Amino acid sequence: MKLVSYRPIDNDAMPWRAGLLVDQAVIDINWAMPDAPSTVLELLQNWAVWQPALQALSLDCHEYEPLSLEQVRLGSPLTRPNSFRDFYAFEAHVKTARARRGLDMVPEWYQFPVFYFSNASAFLGPEEPVVKPKATEWLDYELEIACVIGKGGMDIVVEDAEEHIAGFCILNDWSARDLQREEVKVGLGPAKGKDFATSMGPYLVTLDELEDVRTVSAAGSRFNLPMIARVNGKEYSRGSFGDIHYTFAQLVAHASADCMLHPGDVLGSGTVGTGCILELGTERYDWLKPGDIVELEVERLGILRNTIIAK
Amino acid sequence: MKLVSYRPIDNDAMPWRAGLLVDQAVIDINWAMPDAPSTVLELLQNWAVWQPALQALSLDCHEYEPLSLEQVRLGSPLTRPNSFRDFYAFEAHVKTARARRGLDMVPEWYQFPVFYFSNASAFLGPEEPVVKPKATEWLDYELEIACVIGKGGMDIVVEDAEEHIAGFCILNDWSARDLQREEVKVGLGPAKGKDFATSMGPYLVTLDELEDVRTVSAAGSRFNLPMIARVNGKEYSRGSFGDIHYTFAQLVAHASADCMLHPGDVLGSGTVGTGCILELGTERYDWLKPGDIVELEVERLGILRNTIIAK
Repeated sequence: MKLVSYRPIDNDAMPWRAGLLVDQAVIDINWAMPDAPSTVLELLQNWAVWQPALQALSLDCHEYEPLSLEQVRLGSPLTRPNSFRDFYAFEAHVKTARARRGLDMVPEWYQFPVFYFSNASAFLGPEEPVVKPKATEWLDYELEIACVIGKGGMDIVVEDAEEHIAGFCILNDWSARDLQREEVKVGLGPAKGKDFATSMGPYLVTLDELEDVRTVSAAGSRFNLPMIARVNGKEYSRGSFGDIHYTFAQLVAHASADCMLHPGDVLGSGTVGTGCILELGTERYDWLKPGDIVELEVERLGILRNTIIAK
Repeated sequence: MKLVSYRPIDNDAMPWRAGLLVDQAVIDINWAMPDAPSTVLELLQNWAVWQPALQALSLDCHEYEPLSLEQVRLGSPLTRPNSFRDFYAFEAHVKTARARRGLDMVPEWYQFPVFYFSNASAFLGPEEPVVKPKATEWLDYELEIACVIGKGGMDIVVEDAEEHIAGFCILNDWSARDLQREEVKVGLGPAKGKDFATSMGPYLVTLDELEDVRTVSAAGSRFNLPMIARVNGKEYSRGSFGDIHYTFAQLVAHASADCMLHPGDVLGSGTVGTGCILELGTERYDWLKPGDIVELEVERLGILRNTIIAK
């Protein structure tokens, strides 16, 4: 099933509400099931109860009046995640991005999946404009996939980790490369290079929808899904979710070691190989500027489109 | 005034409630002012209204029955901050900690105050035990001061920044140095080196209580407050909040550049010079172990005491 956060297109003051996306239309979950909470975060906080109820609803919902996609605006499936960790799990991106800064691959990268915490208060949904920070001239996108935690836990083992994942989304980890380059020299972060915006969406896809593209190993599942980025309609990036070095099961296990994960925590994969301008090179493409439209597409996960605007 | 989060000592199931600490006793804010919310975070979310109301209450509260400190347990003043940024604002700590890893001071450190986002979901209060992570043998404390944001905003200028600060607390940014050492080699974080626990407290002190120790400059205020850390009663660290290189006004301004700050955001100062075992050296002191009692004391801000326990 596909979960969304939505509100009526003509009412920006209304709080975001949880919906099911069925046949290109939205069914309001709380209207269909009055005992259910009205936000995606609250559904996740009692996921053991609501996940099966929502699966049942998604299979038998013809009696409820859906809202067409013309009637609603979709937000980030979690408009305010409980937390946001972003990993660095695609080998090609790490190698190329480091090489561009004159750095060799570090052996530690192969020992465990590294991440940083980023700003959970700056999430945007599909079609929401991204304001170019005043302080950057090197604005970039990052083509990633995020998982959203449904079931919390600590010291989760790889074998059990996928039970803790509610689903996957497309994620764009917008980056100010000039700021990032300076601040990481001090040995912390990135922070200002990433804190101004992260977009996620358009919907949260549960793992049962991805069975036919799943490859299972002892390290957990990989999903063979093409990932594409386009800027102003032109293809810039193309990769595959299946190329991820560390599986999401491994990322969840690592994040939860000695640390409690909570429903609504978001874990980003890191950028897929070729998935940002930093990797592709500014001899080929300019940094992003106001007016540019960035479209991230992942098979089964939809299209996440945002337009850059000036401050 | 001094704000606390508290609950009755015999009722761990009760949600943390906001209190005023007056004459070593706690006045429940919502009981004294029934219109007021019952948590510190909610008070901060409408700080322009509640700050003056709380100041008035703190001056005229003899009609309310206080709870003695024997009747209550104090939690972190914010049991779950909206977010947690930790800076690196004391020059001596950065110099010494880098030198211990064979690294020179980086010129960028003098250009802007660098920070990283850390885990806002692992906050502990005074007297709460800190569980030693299984994965670390190099457990350390960090003697810091935190500010809590009362009034949100973006692009806050240094001159206005102190209006956005609700108050100060002591903060212990517990650190797993062996994990941190490995992960930062990859160029992100720290994350696992810091995600298992942060303690804060025992109370939030508003700036009006610190007028007589304030020194004002164009860069904002510094506060001449001795900072001490003791392990099992023995003094390990001694520094001064007045030695901070970047003021909290500068930290708030930097964090808010192109990025919205929200009520309940916590900004840590970074470690004061000598304020951790990493700096003092393991030839002098062992890493922390279960049973150790770590006491951070800052004049006017109280004592934040935690005991390490085994998992």
